[in-house]
Amino acid sequence: MAELKALVFDTFGTVVDWRGSLIAELTAFGRERGIEADWPGLVDAWRGNYRPSMDRVRRGERAWTTLDTLHRETLDRLVSEFAITGLSEDDLRHINLGWHRLKPWPDSVPGLRRLKERYIIGPLSNGNVSLLLNMGKNAAIPWEMIFGSDLFGHFKPDPETYLGACRLLDLKPAEVMMCAAHNNDLRSAQALGLQTGFFPRPGEYGPHQKQDTKADGDWTVIAQDIEDLATRLGC
Amino acid sequence: MAELKALVFDTFGTVVDWRGSLIAELTAFGRERGIEADWPGLVDAWRGNYRPSMDRVRRGERAWTTLDTLHRETLDRLVSEFAITGLSEDDLRHINLGWHRLKPWPDSVPGLRRLKERYIIGPLSNGNVSLLLNMGKNAAIPWEMIFGSDLFGHFKPDPETYLGACRLLDLKPAEVMMCAAHNNDLRSAQALGLQTGFFPRPGEYGPHQKQDTKADGDWTVIAQDIEDLATRLGC
Repeated sequence: MAELKALVFDTFGTVVDWRGSLIAELTAFGRERGIEADWPGLVDAWRGNYRPSMDRVRRGERAWTTLDTLHRETLDRLVSEFAITGLSEDDLRHINLGWHRLKPWPDSVPGLRRLKERYIIGPLSNGNVSLLLNMGKNAAIPWEMIFGSDLFGHFKPDPETYLGACRLLDLKPAEVMMCAAHNNDLRSAQALGLQTGFFPRPGEYGPHQKQDTKADGDWTVIAQDIEDLATRLGC
Repeated sequence: MAELKALVFDTFGTVVDWRGSLIAELTAFGRERGIEADWPGLVDAWRGNYRPSMDRVRRGERAWTTLDTLHRETLDRLVSEFAITGLSEDDLRHINLGWHRLKPWPDSVPGLRRLKERYIIGPLSNGNVSLLLNMGKNAAIPWEMIFGSDLFGHFKPDPETYLGACRLLDLKPAEVMMCAAHNNDLRSAQALGLQTGFFPRPGEYGPHQKQDTKADGDWTVIAQDIEDLATRLGC
């Protein structure tokens, strides 16, 4: 096996708790502003349109569009569907940028700090660079490089993303490990020759999550979380 | 004036001492290996072909080529011109990667750490991402994002570099400051609407340096070095 030199991480769900963060922030926002709404339902529906909205770009049905823009389009539709009133343009913009303020799982930052001692680390995410950069700054995630989807003009699982990160790193795919709590992401990376690291995030989708509760592929490393991944990689 | 949100830095000469680093490394290498050569002369000639080699790409006379490759081509020619013998392919590769191991000026890392508390910071350099990433890792430079020239397929002063960084940051040019020890770099950035920060590096080109010993434009901030820049920006 090639010597491992860099680890790239899926972000939403893998490094940060998008669902818990957004529900907490929107619930507090609604309470403060006196706006009643089914905030958990809105958050789940928002994320529900994540894959379909990117797939329209991936299939070429629309030109390259950043995730920030896709998020905003979905939000505007859902605000109407959930009959939420009283939101200004500034409010909508603030709510949409909630994706820039997601909170890491407790093991993420300490685990990444340990991994960084030995490996290059960065997110390889469908988020745009500014989203990931702001998220990293807000949460003190010690990324060294941001592999946002706008660097490639492609969303995962398009090969341009995984191979684009390897090209920018000037590393062979076998020298790079894709790390994710999502088996499908790892399957796409493995098919292109990258190493793979899995750890489950059983609470990502809330209390009734069925998907990705355990590894279902022949991954290079299977860990409990990012701290455990660091331990297994000798950090 | 727009609120400043991000600072992007020229790197060679501005953040790191390319000449002193390479001369020290090559002199030690030559001594260890018993290879006599005019190492300072080679380093100056190497850097002397920096701009001409990039200009051939900028004028479209050759396809996009990374700085690592341009450096290697120049090195191969100079090894022959300086009649240096006894170097293996591994030696040449190691010497060329000396650009990944350049040492920061004493104020660079402490100054950048202070600036990072308040602003997004990254290099905006003609180096490729892997060069800048490895340099940052070797020298503990606390970059948050690497704006390497290979992200844009253009070298400075092409506008695609300065504006490309603003686009990836999702910021207006007026919210971004180009920081450099080179007046020409700032002139190009200023023409596109970026803020500008100058500090001199009078030893960059050795004891007889004539260029860029002081600010010669109407820059947003003129400082002594990066620590002083941090002070002037309230960090």
